[in-house]
Amino acid sequence: MKDRPLILVTNDDGIEAKGMKSLIQVAREFGDVVAISTQTPMSGMSHAITIKHPLRLNLIKDEPGLKIYLSSGTPVDCVKLAFNSILESKPDLVLSGINHGSNSSSSILYSGTMGAAMEGAINHIPSIGFSLLNYFPDADFSSSQQVAREVIGRVLDEGLPDGICLNVNVPDVSTQELKGIKICSQANGFWKEEFQKRQDPMGRDYYWLTGFFHNREPDGGGEGTDEWALEKHYASVVPINTDLTAHVLMDKIRHWEKTPVQDGSE
Amino acid sequence: MKDRPLILVTNDDGIEAKGMKSLIQVAREFGDVVAISTQTPMSGMSHAITIKHPLRLNLIKDEPGLKIYLSSGTPVDCVKLAFNSILESKPDLVLSGINHGSNSSSSILYSGTMGAAMEGAINHIPSIGFSLLNYFPDADFSSSQQVAREVIGRVLDEGLPDGICLNVNVPDVSTQELKGIKICSQANGFWKEEFQKRQDPMGRDYYWLTGFFHNREPDGGGEGTDEWALEKHYASVVPINTDLTAHVLMDKIRHWEKTPVQDGSE
Repeated sequence: MKDRPLILVTNDDGIEAKGMKSLIQVAREFGDVVAISTQTPMSGMSHAITIKHPLRLNLIKDEPGLKIYLSSGTPVDCVKLAFNSILESKPDLVLSGINHGSNSSSSILYSGTMGAAMEGAINHIPSIGFSLLNYFPDADFSSSQQVAREVIGRVLDEGLPDGICLNVNVPDVSTQELKGIKICSQANGFWKEEFQKRQDPMGRDYYWLTGFFHNREPDGGGEGTDEWALEKHYASVVPINTDLTAHVLMDKIRHWEKTPVQDGSE
Repeated sequence: MKDRPLILVTNDDGIEAKGMKSLIQVAREFGDVVAISTQTPMSGMSHAITIKHPLRLNLIKDEPGLKIYLSSGTPVDCVKLAFNSILESKPDLVLSGINHGSNSSSSILYSGTMGAAMEGAINHIPSIGFSLLNYFPDADFSSSQQVAREVIGRVLDEGLPDGICLNVNVPDVSTQELKGIKICSQANGFWKEEFQKRQDPMGRDYYWLTGFFHNREPDGGGEGTDEWALEKHYASVVPINTDLTAHVLMDKIRHWEKTPVQDGSE
């Protein structure tokens, strides 16, 4: 069996999510699959880990070539549990998703799907996060499955550099309308929030997070960015650093070192 | 009053944390302060946001030059609430911390303190996260306050490029032992987990996350990295990208674009 790759699959939408089932289906074409899912949907959990309480872990399916576990933790907890308490050897690949909803541009920072992929990468395993630009539970994952098949094949053949994973987003179009794959940079954009302020039955205020994505690329264009590719019906593949150092700034602030730290007024 | 900078202070250790009080104290030397804290300690929350339930927000202190709010959300929620539901104008600076415990190397990925600073940066505000290498509630923040004073002054004078924030870590040494500031890159390292498996009174397994940091720099050295500087009793200043694109890989996988996405077997 060890000539087949061992593939870890996780997600942040819970085990019943159609996106995760779609990804497991594709992963099984390439290797043996161990899947571990959050018990409940965990959107927006980013790279969060659980420190304040312990985790539960249950094996819920065990058949040839496929094991499925449920964990009470976050997506990153799932990857840590798999590496340290489930798998006997390191997997050949970590796959996360397919997320119900976009993780392009700065949305990557909030994404549990991409948190899990980045956790794979800092553990030196080639890792890919997949997201479809459709939030609905019954979304059509046919195009995403095609893209996943293509990208997984490439990564198993060519590998990925240590510490770099892939953020793959797929437009919500049919397989006929999908134009192909573009290698992209992360678009410059952010979420502009507008909290909805409401009152509970006791007359106390509470706030619902709402917002819309704001693209800051020139003219909203940004050729070569993920937003631009998705707009044109390409799947976007953004290579992602887990080393966040902004090397470009280092020499510009190097003169800060010259000043000895002064004693303050206390 | 508007000739004094407006400074937003947040953290992930809760309002009673000595580290946050220490940072507010330094921030008030430079400007008017609006502070917003998580109600409870939120270590390990990374860039998580709250989607599934609404947030509470309460003003608990209002005196000249200082307002303090409590929020039921994550550190990133705190920054979003401040920008959108508290502040009438954009702040001149976002400060996060001073965290009780290190956020050097890859620990930045799990850090609520740095999540809040990165959220400031993607909203185009100069932002700095501060952490002290001491987890204890009664840690001595004198050295951290000196470093904060120095770095805040520099950033108010010189600004920061759009989308880049600073990750500042301070060794747990006295002001006399502190050697100064080093501009550093993020050390290559990761947390090696060893989940402790226990049984509850009903005989069911549960898992506690434990682990130790593993430095992967050559010979555990890594001159110029944050781990190296801290070891030598320097405060480390790492400029941090919120654009995570690994540009180094883009041309190497550009040939993936040449293959049209194939129809699968389904």
